[in-house]
Amino acid sequence: MPQDVYVSILAGGSGTRFWPKSRHKRPKQLCALGDSKKSMLEVTLSRLDGFVPAERRMIVTHRDQAEATAALTRDTCPLILAEPEARNTAAALALAALEIKAMAPKGSNPIMISLHADHVIRDTHAFRRVLQEAVAVAREGKIALLGIVPTHPETGFGYIEQGNPLPIKGVMSVSQVASFREKPALEVATQYVKSGRFFWNAGLFIWQVDTILSELRQFLPDTMKALDAACAAAPEGRLSQLPASTLASTYASLKKISIDVAVLEKSTRTAVLPIDMGWKDVGSWDALRSTFGKGGNANLTFGDTMLFDCERVTVDTDGPLVACLGVKDLVVVVSGGAVMVCPESRAQEVKRFVEELQASGRKEYL
Amino acid sequence: MPQDVYVSILAGGSGTRFWPKSRHKRPKQLCALGDSKKSMLEVTLSRLDGFVPAERRMIVTHRDQAEATAALTRDTCPLILAEPEARNTAAALALAALEIKAMAPKGSNPIMISLHADHVIRDTHAFRRVLQEAVAVAREGKIALLGIVPTHPETGFGYIEQGNPLPIKGVMSVSQVASFREKPALEVATQYVKSGRFFWNAGLFIWQVDTILSELRQFLPDTMKALDAACAAAPEGRLSQLPASTLASTYASLKKISIDVAVLEKSTRTAVLPIDMGWKDVGSWDALRSTFGKGGNANLTFGDTMLFDCERVTVDTDGPLVACLGVKDLVVVVSGGAVMVCPESRAQEVKRFVEELQASGRKEYL
Repeated sequence: MPQDVYVSILAGGSGTRFWPKSRHKRPKQLCALGDSKKSMLEVTLSRLDGFVPAERRMIVTHRDQAEATAALTRDTCPLILAEPEARNTAAALALAALEIKAMAPKGSNPIMISLHADHVIRDTHAFRRVLQEAVAVAREGKIALLGIVPTHPETGFGYIEQGNPLPIKGVMSVSQVASFREKPALEVATQYVKSGRFFWNAGLFIWQVDTILSELRQFLPDTMKALDAACAAAPEGRLSQLPASTLASTYASLKKISIDVAVLEKSTRTAVLPIDMGWKDVGSWDALRSTFGKGGNANLTFGDTMLFDCERVTVDTDGPLVACLGVKDLVVVVSGGAVMVCPESRAQEVKRFVEELQASGRKEYL
Repeated sequence: MPQDVYVSILAGGSGTRFWPKSRHKRPKQLCALGDSKKSMLEVTLSRLDGFVPAERRMIVTHRDQAEATAALTRDTCPLILAEPEARNTAAALALAALEIKAMAPKGSNPIMISLHADHVIRDTHAFRRVLQEAVAVAREGKIALLGIVPTHPETGFGYIEQGNPLPIKGVMSVSQVASFREKPALEVATQYVKSGRFFWNAGLFIWQVDTILSELRQFLPDTMKALDAACAAAPEGRLSQLPASTLASTYASLKKISIDVAVLEKSTRTAVLPIDMGWKDVGSWDALRSTFGKGGNANLTFGDTMLFDCERVTVDTDGPLVACLGVKDLVVVVSGGAVMVCPESRAQEVKRFVEELQASGRKEYL
């Protein structure tokens, strides 16, 4: 990638979806999930090796998770932007854009690629190819979005509707965005998939820093005023160099809003690049097994396990032997002195445990 | 109870049915199962408090389990007969009968009550009352058996068929035994229950020591010859005082046979006392929950648990928090660094894990 291309990786997360493996101080992106012994964040970073160097990468995360994050990424991504609190993606991406602006040579207009730390991308080659095209689109002043070619009528994602094609040199397929559609009903999702004109919005964005900052200043002026003021007070204009308490008081005033709602749905500059790259948002235990489960019984096991007559079972243990007999469609997780058992169909509800533990003040399990 | 009444408690067990809570060195009778914090053995002993004193009690167990047993029963039952190997109940009861004979005043004919360490008996009052009657029956030279009034057509137990009544003073109901019936088919068991003449054989026996020794010498002469020879060589005739290696070489020659097959099915002296005393043989996890499960959802939990939307679930943990959501008819056991999960309907198969662990030499979990 050219020297003016930077990558920011959103690595927040409350650590509730993969409890008890994920915790507040060790959210899922810091866990080894799937078929790697590395954390998802490390895998995300290694996908950039030889593509974008470590000194042009940064991670945006919650300050409670900054230390655990840094322990994993000291060499592969030294710069960590520690948010005092989660204020949704508009604030996080504004923070990163301002940091990149301050890092880049004065007067330049660097490119920013925004990734997520907890995505599975099977086809790194396709991923890199589409990013190169997206950079070309971004250089035209566009807000480029990767649109994932849907494999099924998923009702848990937002969709991007493809508009008119944009003729940009060296780019195979890029179109204007006709509309953004929130999580659809199954019937609607089925029509989307059938049409061939709708793509999953994976939250993967590529833009020039000046483009997104300009849009943010237009659509989210209060947030940008606060952040610009903080920048003016920061050493070399870098928000990462501000004292934590200063950034905290700035952050407290920022609007909690997603970049999608704040900017993308309003901007006329959005463009979508359809891509099939084996993308998965591994949002909970059920998605994990459907992504990585193997063999005739489609079980997925990590650690010391003994399974008899089990089907579609996920077992993840950080030490204790887990012995299962005759169970199906079940998730069993042993981590940090807690054991969690639920049917795969209810894996989305695991956060109920976290809520209950919070309510009863049992911090040792959070 | 009169001073010539002794109790022996059979407390063997391989520790496979309640794995991973039960282990080879900590079989189920040493585990706190059910609604008590005490082990089943301790509960069995406490049922005798104020009835038969500690000095007239003894426990028969495998020598591998003797130390763990003694640690629990030092005050409540100091005498432990440690079998070098399990040779079934005829050998174990002969051992106990000979020990009692040697302990009792010379020329006396003491009474022996044989209990099991892993039975639940809800109605201690009824239990004691029937034992008092059974002692009276035993004094008539009978081999008295408690016959449990069946609550359902259980196919996992043997049945005792009631014969002609025996008129014995002070005993409400005692009859000759017409026949012993092995584990019946469901249809047959249903007829048994309907008839009112069949009772569960719980292995609870009351006899004079001379009676059972005489029957054993008649029906199992080789075993008794070997044990009598060992007695002759033992200090004060007490097999408990023999060196372990001496008893081991004697034991190696004993026939592996149950007292039922060796003696009871052949003897003409058997008598049955029907009793309804809330008796349960808690043989595996499923039986445990059906015995002790409480509340509308009939869950049974021990230790630190968090259950949402669970029904008929058994959870037993020795420390780690166990969080279950949306599961039914499931058993989850956490003990000694192992986690076991299986449907309640397959709880009988838990020993498969033990077999697999033995085969793979993973002694830490046995």
